[in-house]
Amino acid sequence: MMVRHLVTIDDLSEAEIQAIFSLADEFLASMPSPGSPHRIRGCLPLADQFVLATLFYEASTRTRFSFETAMIRLGGHVLSSADPKTTSAAKGETIADTVRVLQNYADVIVIRHPCEGAVKVASEYSDVPIINAGDGGHEHPTQTLCDLYTLQREKGSLKNLNVLLWGDLKNGRTVHSLVYGLARFGARIIPLPAEGFGLPEHVTRRLLRDYDCVPLSNDELIDAGTDKFPVDVVYVTPEKPHQRSLFSDVKEKGTDVLRVRLPHNALSKIDACYVTRLQRERMPGDASAENYPMVDTEFLKDRRYRHSSVMHPLPRVTELGYDLDDDARAVYFKQASYGVPVRMALIAALLQIKPDVLGAVPPKKRHSLFARSTVHCDNPNCVTGLETEQRYLTPKFLVIIEDERLTIRCQYCEHESIPEFIGRSSTKKYEPNRMRWESLPDDITLFTDEAAAIAAGYQPYKQRLKV
Amino acid sequence: MMVRHLVTIDDLSEAEIQAIFSLADEFLASMPSPGSPHRIRGCLPLADQFVLATLFYEASTRTRFSFETAMIRLGGHVLSSADPKTTSAAKGETIADTVRVLQNYADVIVIRHPCEGAVKVASEYSDVPIINAGDGGHEHPTQTLCDLYTLQREKGSLKNLNVLLWGDLKNGRTVHSLVYGLARFGARIIPLPAEGFGLPEHVTRRLLRDYDCVPLSNDELIDAGTDKFPVDVVYVTPEKPHQRSLFSDVKEKGTDVLRVRLPHNALSKIDACYVTRLQRERMPGDASAENYPMVDTEFLKDRRYRHSSVMHPLPRVTELGYDLDDDARAVYFKQASYGVPVRMALIAALLQIKPDVLGAVPPKKRHSLFARSTVHCDNPNCVTGLETEQRYLTPKFLVIIEDERLTIRCQYCEHESIPEFIGRSSTKKYEPNRMRWESLPDDITLFTDEAAAIAAGYQPYKQRLKV
Amino acid sequence: MMVRHLVTIDDLSEAEIQAIFSLADEFLASMPSPGSPHRIRGCLPLADQFVLATLFYEASTRTRFSFETAMIRLGGHVLSSADPKTTSAAKGETIADTVRVLQNYADVIVIRHPCEGAVKVASEYSDVPIINAGDGGHEHPTQTLCDLYTLQREKGSLKNLNVLLWGDLKNGRTVHSLVYGLARFGARIIPLPAEGFGLPEHVTRRLLRDYDCVPLSNDELIDAGTDKFPVDVVYVTPEKPHQRSLFSDVKEKGTDVLRVRLPHNALSKIDACYVTRLQRERMPGDASAENYPMVDTEFLKDRRYRHSSVMHPLPRVTELGYDLDDDARAVYFKQASYGVPVRMALIAALLQIKPDVLGAVPPKKRHSLFARSTVHCDNPNCVTGLETEQRYLTPKFLVIIEDERLTIRCQYCEHESIPEFIGRSSTKKYEPNRMRWESLPDDITLFTDEAAAIAAGYQPYKQRLKV
Repeated sequence: MMVRHLVTIDDLSEAEIQAIFSLADEFLASMPSPGSPHRIRGCLPLADQFVLATLFYEASTRTRFSFETAMIRLGGHVLSSADPKTTSAAKGETIADTVRVLQNYADVIVIRHPCEGAVKVASEYSDVPIINAGDGGHEHPTQTLCDLYTLQREKGSLKNLNVLLWGDLKNGRTVHSLVYGLARFGARIIPLPAEGFGLPEHVTRRLLRDYDCVPLSNDELIDAGTDKFPVDVVYVTPEKPHQRSLFSDVKEKGTDVLRVRLPHNALSKIDACYVTRLQRERMPGDASAENYPMVDTEFLKDRRYRHSSVMHPLPRVTELGYDLDDDARAVYFKQASYGVPVRMALIAALLQIKPDVLGAVPPKKRHSLFARSTVHCDNPNCVTGLETEQRYLTPKFLVIIEDERLTIRCQYCEHESIPEFIGRSSTKKYEPNRMRWESLPDDITLFTDEAAAIAAGYQPYKQRLKV
Repeated sequence: MMVRHLVTIDDLSEAEIQAIFSLADEFLASMPSPGSPHRIRGCLPLADQFVLATLFYEASTRTRFSFETAMIRLGGHVLSSADPKTTSAAKGETIADTVRVLQNYADVIVIRHPCEGAVKVASEYSDVPIINAGDGGHEHPTQTLCDLYTLQREKGSLKNLNVLLWGDLKNGRTVHSLVYGLARFGARIIPLPAEGFGLPEHVTRRLLRDYDCVPLSNDELIDAGTDKFPVDVVYVTPEKPHQRSLFSDVKEKGTDVLRVRLPHNALSKIDACYVTRLQRERMPGDASAENYPMVDTEFLKDRRYRHSSVMHPLPRVTELGYDLDDDARAVYFKQASYGVPVRMALIAALLQIKPDVLGAVPPKKRHSLFARSTVHCDNPNCVTGLETEQRYLTPKFLVIIEDERLTIRCQYCEHESIPEFIGRSSTKKYEPNRMRWESLPDDITLFTDEAAAIAAGYQPYKQRLKV
Repeated sequence: MMVRHLVTIDDLSEAEIQAIFSLADEFLASMPSPGSPHRIRGCLPLADQFVLATLFYEASTRTRFSFETAMIRLGGHVLSSADPKTTSAAKGETIADTVRVLQNYADVIVIRHPCEGAVKVASEYSDVPIINAGDGGHEHPTQTLCDLYTLQREKGSLKNLNVLLWGDLKNGRTVHSLVYGLARFGARIIPLPAEGFGLPEHVTRRLLRDYDCVPLSNDELIDAGTDKFPVDVVYVTPEKPHQRSLFSDVKEKGTDVLRVRLPHNALSKIDACYVTRLQRERMPGDASAENYPMVDTEFLKDRRYRHSSVMHPLPRVTELGYDLDDDARAVYFKQASYGVPVRMALIAALLQIKPDVLGAVPPKKRHSLFARSTVHCDNPNCVTGLETEQRYLTPKFLVIIEDERLTIRCQYCEHESIPEFIGRSSTKKYEPNRMRWESLPDDITLFTDEAAAIAAGYQPYKQRLKV
């Protein structure tokens, strides 16, 4: 039986996510807290033969506790490493080595790491399940599971929900994972970022390319109920890719004009407001955000928010008014409580205590793999840039040919880069990366820059043109 | 059923404290350690459905371990947060939010915090029991329970014990809680502070006002056995307030002359010496304490100490001689061991595993409440002064009218302040706070200073006198 | 029943070590991991009434987790202190006090401390078993147990194994404990240190004096199979001391010429290569080690390494090639996994869950004890040098008379010093320490220097000679 990991939310199929949610429902129903039905109480005798280790290279009491609680409520045992300075990384140990020792102790390992892609590296060297509890600005997939589960519990289904995203949409890994998850389950995404904190281009590009999630500008959303609603764009996913034509005149790439037929008044009510804090720790040192907006009862007076669930991944700072705490629409503490049943279900699934939740094999990747060091990831916070990890790690990239220029996505941090040059090993020639490929030749080689091509012994394709 | 917390020792009635001690006795009797009958060994199957979380914003391995041990010996489970830097406070989260998340994970939460009143705040936002494991210089009530329990185990009863307090009586929260506890149970308190480290005035004032505990000066204690005993004052609590006249001529306030008839030689033997270390971490940066005294076998040669139990909350530094360690009177390690059965009993009571220990409602407060921001607590280390907590926290004060001037006690840190001005909302007039009130009018308003009164739109009561 | 501790590997007899290994074998056989037979899975119901506390004054996630895992796999409970700053040592508490409090909570205590001898101090004040998880540069006996166990599992027996030691043999406590263990079990020790990082003289002296382990130089090892093998010396232990003559012409002290008859080609194959990292944290601040050697597949090409098990206590830095990870000879991760069954067996033995593993009394020391403060240990990192511990600790030394000059070994850190002067209390005379004693007089007194002798009221033995 193959070992499954949860590094990104894409490691789970939609069916698997739904199966995890059903199991979480079961746990909630069978372990109710008197008076707080969203809360798990008591312990089950399910995991008493298992040990979960938390390995936090970056401190987070909340997240660590939620995993440890989940394991304890399953009847299991916990090894706890709370503090970055107490890990053997301080002695220069690599992630691969740490994991290969730890798998001798624990049956499942939860990792938080400040570098993007670090947990993916861990998963490649582990034969026990690895769970990503946050790797830098990359992913925090169990938070996404909790967010989606909260929406489903509160609203019955994720399909066609209008979800407003509020605050720092630029730096928050939580939000990036969430938008992909929302797209996959067919919710409509309505970004309302603080000024200068919009969704990054790489996220919106992936939404369209990888999740068939189409950006519709407000101008185009006539009759959808967005009048006087200061929204620039809404992301909508048709049920099936071939239904894209439901949004008439969608142009496959570069959509400058779009006629849209959403249901009448489809956007006139907001099902959920997802509020995020300013991710100060992921911003450059001198960045600042004066006038970062606040969601409070005043903001929610508008009738389109009358039934909005207000969500927040917590901790909040000042972006969410305390006056909301007693408002029935505030579900952020309930959302935190759902972290326990969801993580219980995930752990039970990965440990195969509940064997029918996950399929035998993880969801397929549809892109080709390129694994040579002639290109490198240009994300400065990628794990492949760490000196310790370079001792053993070969960069790996998925090669994406759908974009205008051939693009590579780092297998670890999932950051996308565009190699400057492309070569063919059969001819030992290289040329600038400037055209779209219909399909990828077997002998292709990618180069971060021309120097890398020359160092690899390649010649320019059309030498005469270079004069 | 109402949730009970232990924030200050006053949250428990005397009967409840005795019930906790009886339960601790039971645990000790049923879980004996061979050869060390003061020590708990083995684990009970009582709390196997419960999780206790420790949340230490200030490090203390000893205290944390004593709670975690107690929970484990009850058969329960532990979430452990040892280190201030690993809490989400570092991300700017408020106490209220932290607790409201954590109560979804744990069934009971133990908190240590550097700010006075912080644990009270936590208790107001929690629907699971909160235990104060030390909040700045304020309280450490489980230490007090252990101290009182040790006295009772060693001496059979607390009634009429002579307890000598030695060392830093000024800065130690342990000592302040203990003196209130001793007064409530009728022990006599004999302070023997290091020079400059006497009981603060607010403690002696509360002793008299709130616990009917009368200071008797040595001059007045003729025939009580204090000859050649360098003690300035003894605090004595009559069994019932109306028996105060047993100490004849006690003047209700400002006792300059006092004739005292304690039993013959009542103070000629000391039942217990409670030694404390210099609380260096609570002193101003430039404070020093040269010649801080030491209790050792030499000091205990005097015959009045022949049967004295020597106690210490530990850790000791140099104020307690190592030559005492093998002396039969040294009970400080036994005192530490009692921390386990006492905390087991407390946890079992709060979780209602043992349902008959605590009453349905906490002991009544007898003072009126004032909750408006026209006054503030003048304790610079009060939790109400933290910027993060001010986002949601309204100051609250108990109004005390027994003193010469109307006094307020912060509901959180219990520090007492005297508002400079008092107003009446019916007349919108204010006047200086300089008289005693027989009873408190409903429409009273309190002002930290005159500016606050003016800002609130009040006029001086007798304007003509102000010229 | 006497409480047993594990402070140094010498606290266990060979028979006890073998009994621990047999118990570890049992655990491995009864708790197999599917597909990884070197790994423990599941939990036993053996230690469910017991609590193990880890007290790490120096951070080490790996070592801490290995102990906590072992306790959990035995069914027991854990109190965890991961971080040096969260211990009460920060408040100035002594080791003795910390342990005397902690023994009231836990049934067995695991300690790591930066000072040599600190864990021995703890063991003297504890009536529950203490396990040394590393005390400065002194010992790490459970690592040694794992190392020996790995060799025995991989090779069937320790007898006559050729074990190559590679890297930093100077600063590594792991290596020092291992060489004593190898000597006791009759393995041959072949040091191959990095330049300037050879075994210290005190280790080689103890090898010969205390373990009858004889250094044989390469010149003398003709026909043993060391041709073209860049080894300076091999340490060989005859089965019984009186068999030393098997190595003909062994001179009891100062062996300049030696004729050696080892079995033909005895050293032509290496059974195990034990690789160590540079102990940077134990080196003086300005020390450096350029060109620190690396063991990799290239190095292991030589046919004498064809069946060598490659071991490493981990974490590795750059001294062990990642290209070895997939090599069948690499057993370092398996070695780490053996830490769990070995520590399970040790804990079960010390807690007497398995009562027949340890004898009633620890192995005897054969030297006399000297416990007066006229001499002090000259190891600057010895626990007896700590100001806090000097409040209560009397230095203690074993007196060794086998060497050319009378030598003392600190009872705590085991560092050996040579007192400059020796006195007799019967005559109150002292003289320089310059002769060998056949037996030790009862009235002997030792002085670190002449000033100590004079301060103690002693006179020079031959006053006339001093002119």
